[in-house]
Amino acid sequence: MERHFDEELKSLKQKLLQMADLTQEMIGFSVQSLVKRDETLAHKTLEIEKKVNHMEIEIEEEVLRLLALRQPAAKDLRLLTAILKINSDLERVADQACNISETAVYLLKEPPLKPLIDIPNMANLAQRMIKNSLDAFVNHDPALAKQVCEDDDEVDRINEQIFRELLTFMMENPKNITRAVDLILISRNLERVADHATNIGEEVIFIEEGKNIKHHFND
Amino acid sequence: MERHFDEELKSLKQKLLQMADLTQEMIGFSVQSLVKRDETLAHKTLEIEKKVNHMEIEIEEEVLRLLALRQPAAKDLRLLTAILKINSDLERVADQACNISETAVYLLKEPPLKPLIDIPNMANLAQRMIKNSLDAFVNHDPALAKQVCEDDDEVDRINEQIFRELLTFMMENPKNITRAVDLILISRNLERVADHATNIGEEVIFIEEGKNIKHHFND
Repeated sequence: MERHFDEELKSLKQKLLQMADLTQEMIGFSVQSLVKRDETLAHKTLEIEKKVNHMEIEIEEEVLRLLALRQPAAKDLRLLTAILKINSDLERVADQACNISETAVYLLKEPPLKPLIDIPNMANLAQRMIKNSLDAFVNHDPALAKQVCEDDDEVDRINEQIFRELLTFMMENPKNITRAVDLILISRNLERVADHATNIGEEVIFIEEGKNIKHHFND
Repeated sequence: MERHFDEELKSLKQKLLQMADLTQEMIGFSVQSLVKRDETLAHKTLEIEKKVNHMEIEIEEEVLRLLALRQPAAKDLRLLTAILKINSDLERVADQACNISETAVYLLKEPPLKPLIDIPNMANLAQRMIKNSLDAFVNHDPALAKQVCEDDDEVDRINEQIFRELLTFMMENPKNITRAVDLILISRNLERVADHATNIGEEVIFIEEGKNIKHHFND
């Protein structure tokens, strides 16, 4: 039974990795729809979300099945509850990508406000953070998980910078306001994606090193 | 042992209710700090967050302990994983209240842009949603949980209305822009609070009626 359980866990992790790949794809399509001014890419995001939602439910059901059937002890138990959390974070990443796509559809009805540099950079970084957080989980790599948490500071910095730049656009010309606010919202969505990756990173550190760094009790 | 487990579950639910009360208080203080223009209320929010963070960790540890020790079967298992999820949603509500307080501290450095009506209304509604979602959980009340999901539409409507109103303020005068964007962000934070209450409501419907309404497979 032990070996069988290991196989089951392995297959769950694989599924989680697939789901993470899909969410990265979604972020890519949602931001590329803006950059390439191609609405069909935004719709692709919404298509992929259906798959992600199915996967989320499948993974949750499988975790519950394993909890009931295998009645795992401490370490495996923590692994399974971690999978539940990561599953939920990934589903929320998919939600954020959908929010971006929906805003993009509005933005594409108007001429571009400015060339987009920071937002695609931020999207790349957020995608990499998702990938790294999952790799850290699957490969038991707390150092990589810490890297994810550190990258979050960079995302926050870019988010602030985007915010300030877009404020100046709004100040210059009221015609820029709606588009600038939309871009600020997209930048916030990406910041939220990075937050979810950070949640996953913190969870990995918790599992691997047995300490909860989430709330920095010593601060 | 069965009876003992029931007692343990009951005490976990009580703790979750306390945590929910604290998050409602946090939302109250964060928005009241803006309405009453009193920065000390914003700081109270940040104080309470420490308690919420401690409670989140305690609840999680207790759930893991029960999972390991009691090895509960199907129904209780689902209840425990639901508690884990609700726990995580409540902690994120607390995060949103902190975001509001942080933005409020900036806003209080400048004169008020406009009298605040919709934002306090939205905050009241979001607080009630949190309360109702937890009551629905503890009292096994799927009808109340559905009410929570319906209230979410009203929150989205108010959020849209606030957004449009603030856009006109920005268009009228560039001096309004920074403050208007800050209020838009606060309105988004409240919308996220309502989303978390809705997550909890959906979880309750899932537990009580055994169906997953989250992603509307039949849509």
